[in-house]
Amino acid sequence: MDQANMTLQCTKSAGHWRPSRMVVWDEEGFQGRRHEFTAECPSVLELGFETVRSLKVLSGARWVGFEHAGFQGQQYVLERGDYPAWDAWGGNTAYPAERLTSFRPVACANHRDSRLTIFEQENFLGRKGELSDDYPSLQAMGWDGTEVGSFHVQSGAWVCSQFPGYRGFQYVLESDHHSGDYKHFREWGSHAHTFQVQSARRIQQ
Amino acid sequence: MDQANMTLQCTKSAGHWRPSRMVVWDEEGFQGRRHEFTAECPSVLELGFETVRSLKVLSGARWVGFEHAGFQGQQYVLERGDYPAWDAWGGNTAYPAERLTSFRPVACANHRDSRLTIFEQENFLGRKGELSDDYPSLQAMGWDGTEVGSFHVQSGAWVCSQFPGYRGFQYVLESDHHSGDYKHFREWGSHAHTFQVQSARRIQQ
Repeated sequence: MDQANMTLQCTKSAGHWRPSRMVVWDEEGFQGRRHEFTAECPSVLELGFETVRSLKVLSGARWVGFEHAGFQGQQYVLERGDYPAWDAWGGNTAYPAERLTSFRPVACANHRDSRLTIFEQENFLGRKGELSDDYPSLQAMGWDGTEVGSFHVQSGAWVCSQFPGYRGFQYVLESDHHSGDYKHFREWGSHAHTFQVQSARRIQQ
Repeated sequence: MDQANMTLQCTKSAGHWRPSRMVVWDEEGFQGRRHEFTAECPSVLELGFETVRSLKVLSGARWVGFEHAGFQGQQYVLERGDYPAWDAWGGNTAYPAERLTSFRPVACANHRDSRLTIFEQENFLGRKGELSDDYPSLQAMGWDGTEVGSFHVQSGAWVCSQFPGYRGFQYVLESDHHSGDYKHFREWGSHAHTFQVQSARRIQQ
């Protein structure tokens, strides 16, 4: 795991490669033990961390953090910037998970080329909608109802949220994972127990 | 206050007028007493509500909700959609305010015409940046640091957030309020005790 400090991993984006760097600490406010990452980390427990308590995304690609080891549990999109405590990335105030145990970079498409299809029912059935922009409210764009049954990511990476305005549970959907197919909520997150999705945005390069 | 149920108030947007409607309940899950609004409400206490516990934004303009009566305390942008409980609009997991007591519509500009200038220091001093798009990370657009000292809204309405990815405290900034000038954090929210601002997006029509 320490080797991750040494190698500069690059994440493909729009045909060229950009280095991505994230630094994590085991205390709030960028205190305590510090580790720098340029590639995925399946478990900070192996570093002797109980959990990540603060972090900075320094450059390059966005990251997605996970509540549990092995990329399981609640998901948190980590944009470039400073996160002095867990509430800076915490997505859901009803189920606050004060834990961030694994994380990996997200491979994004060119922002303008990001495309996502949403379906009314699971298995790509029912009415559908095409997204190529950021939508803090799917209802405002004409989507009828508060649920999405399945997704197909044609290109890019997206974050969908349970509530309007990018609130509540977050689900990261990527064209490079599952061939972009997410046919049931079990496939967009081990923590998802609902089809409720009311906002969606592109994850920017 | 009951009269608000009767009159259809319209909110100016892009030169024409659109009706805006919001329904609130005093129990979670759209249960209990119900009131429909088309204009601002300075206090739900006057309706006999202890607080709003669920709500739907049905059409027209976006709204901003406030923790306390008289449009004070934490701010919550309310996009079109369903909010079955306070955690659907709750902005800050570190200071969860399970209270929404007043709200009003937000007058937006045409989405493409929204412009915001950010300044390094209070009173419009220091380096500045011009925004005309949504920025889940100001650092990723080249802003150096995690703070904004002052704002000038040239047009439209914006929501700025304490942390990247539209997390943490939210601050609604409008060209129609304060002449668009917000020269110190005291002017962008009675709950703001910090210049920390790491993301910003337009409030869409």
